[in-house]
Amino acid sequence: METILRGTTREVVISTAGPVVIIGECINPTRRKKLVSTLREGNFEYVLELAREQIDDFADVLDVNVGFPGVEDEKLLPEVVKALEDNFDIPLCLDSPNPKAIEAALKVSKGKCLINSVNGEERSLRALLPVAKEYGAAIIGLVMDDDGITHDPEKRLAIAGKIINRAVAEGIPAADVIIDPLAMAVSADPGACMVTLGTIKLISSRLGHNMTMGASNISFGLPEREYLNSSFLALAIAAGITCPIAHPGKSAMAVRATDLVLGRDDYAIRYIEAAQKLKKNT
Amino acid sequence: METILRGTTREVVISTAGPVVIIGECINPTRRKKLVSTLREGNFEYVLELAREQIDDFADVLDVNVGFPGVEDEKLLPEVVKALEDNFDIPLCLDSPNPKAIEAALKVSKGKCLINSVNGEERSLRALLPVAKEYGAAIIGLVMDDDGITHDPEKRLAIAGKIINRAVAEGIPAADVIIDPLAMAVSADPGACMVTLGTIKLISSRLGHNMTMGASNISFGLPEREYLNSSFLALAIAAGITCPIAHPGKSAMAVRATDLVLGRDDYAIRYIEAAQKLKKNT
Repeated sequence: METILRGTTREVVISTAGPVVIIGECINPTRRKKLVSTLREGNFEYVLELAREQIDDFADVLDVNVGFPGVEDEKLLPEVVKALEDNFDIPLCLDSPNPKAIEAALKVSKGKCLINSVNGEERSLRALLPVAKEYGAAIIGLVMDDDGITHDPEKRLAIAGKIINRAVAEGIPAADVIIDPLAMAVSADPGACMVTLGTIKLISSRLGHNMTMGASNISFGLPEREYLNSSFLALAIAAGITCPIAHPGKSAMAVRATDLVLGRDDYAIRYIEAAQKLKKNT
Repeated sequence: METILRGTTREVVISTAGPVVIIGECINPTRRKKLVSTLREGNFEYVLELAREQIDDFADVLDVNVGFPGVEDEKLLPEVVKALEDNFDIPLCLDSPNPKAIEAALKVSKGKCLINSVNGEERSLRALLPVAKEYGAAIIGLVMDDDGITHDPEKRLAIAGKIINRAVAEGIPAADVIIDPLAMAVSADPGACMVTLGTIKLISSRLGHNMTMGASNISFGLPEREYLNSSFLALAIAAGITCPIAHPGKSAMAVRATDLVLGRDDYAIRYIEAAQKLKKNT
């Protein structure tokens, strides 16, 4: 299955056959005070710098989250989207819990965006599916619903199925629904990663949709997080994750290595490209 | 299934249920001129230093390879085994293509060793199985035979089955046969890792034996090898590798991270222990 996103002109194809597409996570106020302070001042230089760095580090899509206390993101999100699209031809992933901010951003975008995220809650489906349909956006469907978060992979699969069915009923192509199987901290629950991996395998074999996840969530609260993130990423990609949301600079090598191991990188071209970049940076 | 090895007194249990047991690869002359020169002089300080370092870096078993041009390893291997056992209580993995060297080493060893390796060739089976039986050693069974190396996982499985059957017929307990599914360079063959992973999955589901492999073989000829090794190791462990032969200092974090992700490390105790060691070293 293929999900096609678009920057102002350039298409990015996310395919269940691989290789992996990296959605850069760095435009996000969490642990980036400078992003908050510059955006508060209406200064977009730093957000553009974060975009440039990530593209340089092999991000294929950029997640855009400008939510912080006191922000009017219905105003700020579209402004940032406009600034990014004026400077870069890369698809954007609009990351906000506020459907009105998403809609306002879709209104100004010249590309085909990804909405991060819709979930199985009635409120979410009703608010966002019509918006995705109207603006021709793809969506990330997060496998939680009005009953909360389940730890049963079969139930997560069922929620994924429900989101896809509701999207298709709304007129959204099935391929435009990317599922997020929910990666949670293994420090809080020793079985957390296995639940996520089990969900990924079920969705891959039964639904065959593209899948994303916040790859670094699993290592929250633990030291030397990159080792955990890399191991989990390898297993998640092999199981069916096709477009993780991750830090491009920190995860590109693990992603490219996994694609190579999985036989998706003839002559190791993409792996060697990333390795050369790494060498240049260190 | 459990394979039990023993140092002079201490037992190491390799279990298909995990966690992973690391067989330290560093006592090997490849790219270690100092090992060759010191051993030539009959000086065992460096080989003992390599042992100490690896044990410190979480090796559970030590591979011992002292083969280099001009060596009389029927004499040297038992001497090194004796020196190691006089100083450390850790099981040894005797690594030599010379069955006489293996036998001479088994004769002096006070522990229960692992023979690295027997393969499916008639000559190998006939030379080594009686020796393993006589000294109560466990064996690594490498999935190649008189027809050479096959790229078909089903055929590799068949060779594994043959080695196990022949060992059992010789009186060796089935659990004392650890299979090596053969990891080869992905730079030479883009499908190499997938063949190995396919073989591991077949052996795990059909035979249920413990498995080892030379984890770093796959990255031969490529840059930034540790990224490749880590990704492959994660996938191989998830598929069923239980006791990789690896560089403990370079792979312990990836191994412990994978065990944690797979739900085999409650409270992340073993992962955090390795992370603290890493921090101390850097």
